[in-house]
Amino acid sequence: MNPIPEPSVERLLILARLLDRLDVQFITSGEIEARTGWSSNTIRKDISYLEGSFASPAGYDREKLSGAIKTALGLDKPQRFCVVGLGRLGSAYLNYPAFAEEGYELVAGFDSSVNRIEILRSPVPLYPAYKMAEVISRFQISLALLCVPPEEAQHATDRLVAAGIKGIINFAPVVLQVPEGIQVRNVNVVDELRAISATIQCS
Amino acid sequence: MNPIPEPSVERLLILARLLDRLDVQFITSGEIEARTGWSSNTIRKDISYLEGSFASPAGYDREKLSGAIKTALGLDKPQRFCVVGLGRLGSAYLNYPAFAEEGYELVAGFDSSVNRIEILRSPVPLYPAYKMAEVISRFQISLALLCVPPEEAQHATDRLVAAGIKGIINFAPVVLQVPEGIQVRNVNVVDELRAISATIQCS
Repeated sequence: MNPIPEPSVERLLILARLLDRLDVQFITSGEIEARTGWSSNTIRKDISYLEGSFASPAGYDREKLSGAIKTALGLDKPQRFCVVGLGRLGSAYLNYPAFAEEGYELVAGFDSSVNRIEILRSPVPLYPAYKMAEVISRFQISLALLCVPPEEAQHATDRLVAAGIKGIINFAPVVLQVPEGIQVRNVNVVDELRAISATIQCS
Repeated sequence: MNPIPEPSVERLLILARLLDRLDVQFITSGEIEARTGWSSNTIRKDISYLEGSFASPAGYDREKLSGAIKTALGLDKPQRFCVVGLGRLGSAYLNYPAFAEEGYELVAGFDSSVNRIEILRSPVPLYPAYKMAEVISRFQISLALLCVPPEEAQHATDRLVAAGIKGIINFAPVVLQVPEGIQVRNVNVVDELRAISATIQCS
């Protein structure tokens, strides 16, 4: 498969979400434009990266287009992930129901405190941090939610990378150093608060 | 002050974070380009929206530039916010230390369950949901973290908007309908997992 440019990947992710929420059989590029603000040209270009037939005189077949996007982006393959750091935020995700429905299976939680692991009730098996490499390799875990305190984030990242993790969602307000080929996405509530404040101020 | 275009606002937010992390007195647009990938032209254009003097032969004065960005984006004004929905995720934020340092003061938590409010230990005052309008108005709360279950998210949003909230950070995996002028930013771990999977697949 040809690589898809990053901006097209980001738009196709949004388009897949949009299609999943709609209750229609067909959608035209004009209707997508009205809902997203992207030009019809951009939409057609993005869709040209997909394989399969989903176009008809009535527009794109919604379900087929959604399926083609998920195939192209690899979203149809179930992925295993783990949570690292089981404080308030990390432990909140142990019971999050939507992951499995979306094809993401949470198979392990890690914390450096053995005491915390023994006390926490969890539907997911919990392990001390020193077992990270063994567990990640055994269960072929590809993704991690990193919920440790900021001062532990880089050290935990180094262990995850050494254990073979491919992608990290980082909740700590620090910039992680990772080797090329490892993907990091940062989720930071303070950044979101600042972005909202700035948008209110500047609009 | 002149409005700053949305893409420039997004870049200036990132630039302010970058400047705050550096330990240098001056930084050139070439150095910013090397760290961000933005062209020197784009950087100079973004910075031209700011007021004040921070340029010198050695480059931009880091602290002055950071200060000018924060002033322009309104990040130097403290903001009050609330948490709505005190399940695992919402209650995790009640004890988050970084908010106050960054100028965001968490002044109230709301939940529709009076029982939950009575049981939770919190350094922040908690209120039943029916007091939302009164409390938001009394404390001039401008922002909200929305941590309620998906099926309650739109109803809670309508109440927040009616109470005078200007911006919402939405953790529920639903698209909120809000009147023009109200800012929403969505934080969704499944979306982040999908974005990482897609980037791994397509790179």
